[in-house]
Amino acid sequence: MLQFFVKYMWWIVPLVLLSACAGPQPVLRGTGDLGVVIERATGQMQVIETSGRKSLAQVSGLGDLSHASVVFSRDSRYAYVFGRDGGLTKVDLLTASIAGRVVQAGNAIGGAISQDGRLVVAQNYEPGGIKAFDADTLELVADVPADFGSEGKRSKVVGLADLPGNRFVYALFDANEIRVTDLSDPRHPKTERYPAGKQPYDALVTPDGRYYIAGLFGEDGLSLLDLWQPELGVRTILPGYGRGEQALPVYKMPHLRGWAVAGGRAYLPAIGRHEVLVVELGSWKEVTRIPVKSQPVFVMARPDGREVWVNFAFPDNGWMQVIDTFTNRTVNTFQPGRAILHLEFTPRGEAVWISARDDNKVAIYDTRSHQKLAELPAASPSGIFFTSRAFRTGF
Amino acid sequence: MLQFFVKYMWWIVPLVLLSACAGPQPVLRGTGDLGVVIERATGQMQVIETSGRKSLAQVSGLGDLSHASVVFSRDSRYAYVFGRDGGLTKVDLLTASIAGRVVQAGNAIGGAISQDGRLVVAQNYEPGGIKAFDADTLELVADVPADFGSEGKRSKVVGLADLPGNRFVYALFDANEIRVTDLSDPRHPKTERYPAGKQPYDALVTPDGRYYIAGLFGEDGLSLLDLWQPELGVRTILPGYGRGEQALPVYKMPHLRGWAVAGGRAYLPAIGRHEVLVVELGSWKEVTRIPVKSQPVFVMARPDGREVWVNFAFPDNGWMQVIDTFTNRTVNTFQPGRAILHLEFTPRGEAVWISARDDNKVAIYDTRSHQKLAELPAASPSGIFFTSRAFRTGF
Repeated sequence: MLQFFVKYMWWIVPLVLLSACAGPQPVLRGTGDLGVVIERATGQMQVIETSGRKSLAQVSGLGDLSHASVVFSRDSRYAYVFGRDGGLTKVDLLTASIAGRVVQAGNAIGGAISQDGRLVVAQNYEPGGIKAFDADTLELVADVPADFGSEGKRSKVVGLADLPGNRFVYALFDANEIRVTDLSDPRHPKTERYPAGKQPYDALVTPDGRYYIAGLFGEDGLSLLDLWQPELGVRTILPGYGRGEQALPVYKMPHLRGWAVAGGRAYLPAIGRHEVLVVELGSWKEVTRIPVKSQPVFVMARPDGREVWVNFAFPDNGWMQVIDTFTNRTVNTFQPGRAILHLEFTPRGEAVWISARDDNKVAIYDTRSHQKLAELPAASPSGIFFTSRAFRTGF
Repeated sequence: MLQFFVKYMWWIVPLVLLSACAGPQPVLRGTGDLGVVIERATGQMQVIETSGRKSLAQVSGLGDLSHASVVFSRDSRYAYVFGRDGGLTKVDLLTASIAGRVVQAGNAIGGAISQDGRLVVAQNYEPGGIKAFDADTLELVADVPADFGSEGKRSKVVGLADLPGNRFVYALFDANEIRVTDLSDPRHPKTERYPAGKQPYDALVTPDGRYYIAGLFGEDGLSLLDLWQPELGVRTILPGYGRGEQALPVYKMPHLRGWAVAGGRAYLPAIGRHEVLVVELGSWKEVTRIPVKSQPVFVMARPDGREVWVNFAFPDNGWMQVIDTFTNRTVNTFQPGRAILHLEFTPRGEAVWISARDDNKVAIYDTRSHQKLAELPAASPSGIFFTSRAFRTGF
């Protein structure tokens, strides 16, 4: 038999070997121009490339993505996708495959990654608290419950953001507190507590990691913690913010992450009004209000800060406006598609990707000419996230 | 013969094939944590990785690297290395090999990459001007001579920086001018000219791309062009900057790229003095001067802006100091090694890499504890550049 093989069939061995090594191999490529588009209806996401403005692959099996957020590994190869159902999925962008997945809580609302890239941290509604996972293995390394009061109650956690020094800042909706947890030794987390305003519902940190600002559901104004002087505690800024408006239903909470910081000023959506507020950083005084078409949702700065792009709440969610931050006037009003849910600028800002959920497309615009460059099909697209987020603080 | 082969030697075919496909294959990996260290004495550079704090490979054949600078492709896979000899080399960081090389001028001093990543632009002393190359192929696509006067003279070009809109700003040492060239249609460059102070020798643009500031060799003060209002022309700021000092020899020109912008203020080396100047952005008034150990060279902000790290001119070039920007006081004075030539912060600032030329090493420090984390051997290291530069304006 062997003799037969050697005599007549020897050529088959190299053929088998050749086909094994010529099989589908992932392409060697840089990861600086990659990103993901969440397809919320199908629990999938697309891996995209901003250089060629194209979709590279689709990844399934990510669970409930109705309120998904994404952070990236420090080598910008992996996306960590936080689903509403508590699922945390690590996706390899180069192979478009799932590199790890844990269901870490019953109800989650997003996450962050540590400054050194070693810890991925989820913020949870139920059970309330934060959990830190090894970024390589997704092994649980710290569980910090958001306990308060004397009866072992746990609060919903909102507004989680990373800080320098592998610290994390977040707010407790049910406990009226801001907390800072130092995870530089993740087996021994250290948490500081700061009493804040009523029912913080979301928050942001300024790009330098200095100021943490929480929106309040239970009262007017915003809670500010200066993380360079935490001993001063929380103070209330913009006391009129939200004044005179109906309390908003929880499912319509505005996104504070949609604030823009440009030229030493913050641009933020005026709750329930057709206005964008302009506030001076540091003094936190209102500089002006810019009238816009409808109730703003995301107010996003072009990376050079010269323009701020705004989308709106239903029924005007097919519109966008562009504000020139030098003159504080709107310079463009246009309709990129139906149900604009999110937008993301390319890292250096030459283009912006806009998700139009009800048109099942992502529209890509040139930010200098404001002309449309391309469209990509996507199933009910919502969040768009580019890998350059790996290099920023406060996401 | 064939029969002999088939009978006794058939096994050699799969072996040969196997070794061919098991040969050194580039590793599939993200490129967000890569960087390069210039080894100036040998014309080589190391490809390094900040996550593991290690050297991955060495690349040779880069020409004269005595005043090298580096920019990165928008996918962060390729480094474009500008040598002093006019060489422009495209290095593939994933394979540690040269993907292209042109010798584009007789004497060059650095370069930049366009906002959209499609053009790599070199600034040249001899012959004076800028040249734009296709970032993929290194094909010359635009040659913009820095001509001035009526006799066809050409000026040395300094201080080249990219701007939004695929524009580039630069200064003419011999013509006392700042120019802005729009390369959005590279076959038809459009150049605007702005008269400036005497003998600009280097320049920088603020991180938002708004202000361009040129240092002057021929007079005191600095030339400022507000790129959001270029019609106002160039004005002089900090009229005392450089006052009372000897004109510096050309080979000791300070690096304006070493300025830091933090918390709405610029930190800059006081020429010839043992001081760091603090200047308010916008008003350009001097806020204070911080005494330091010696003549500062690079004054670099930690990415969160809370600290500024300073190195010094010979004979104190073995020292570094750290300034706390909140108190404007030095908080640390230490000796990382002999002949500190450059430093680069990791993208989110948890560590800093410092080149110590005369110790043939790169020292890596934790920026929170200021403790040394690691050292890597390197032959006369000078510039250190990480791929996160791909995502910033003004480099």
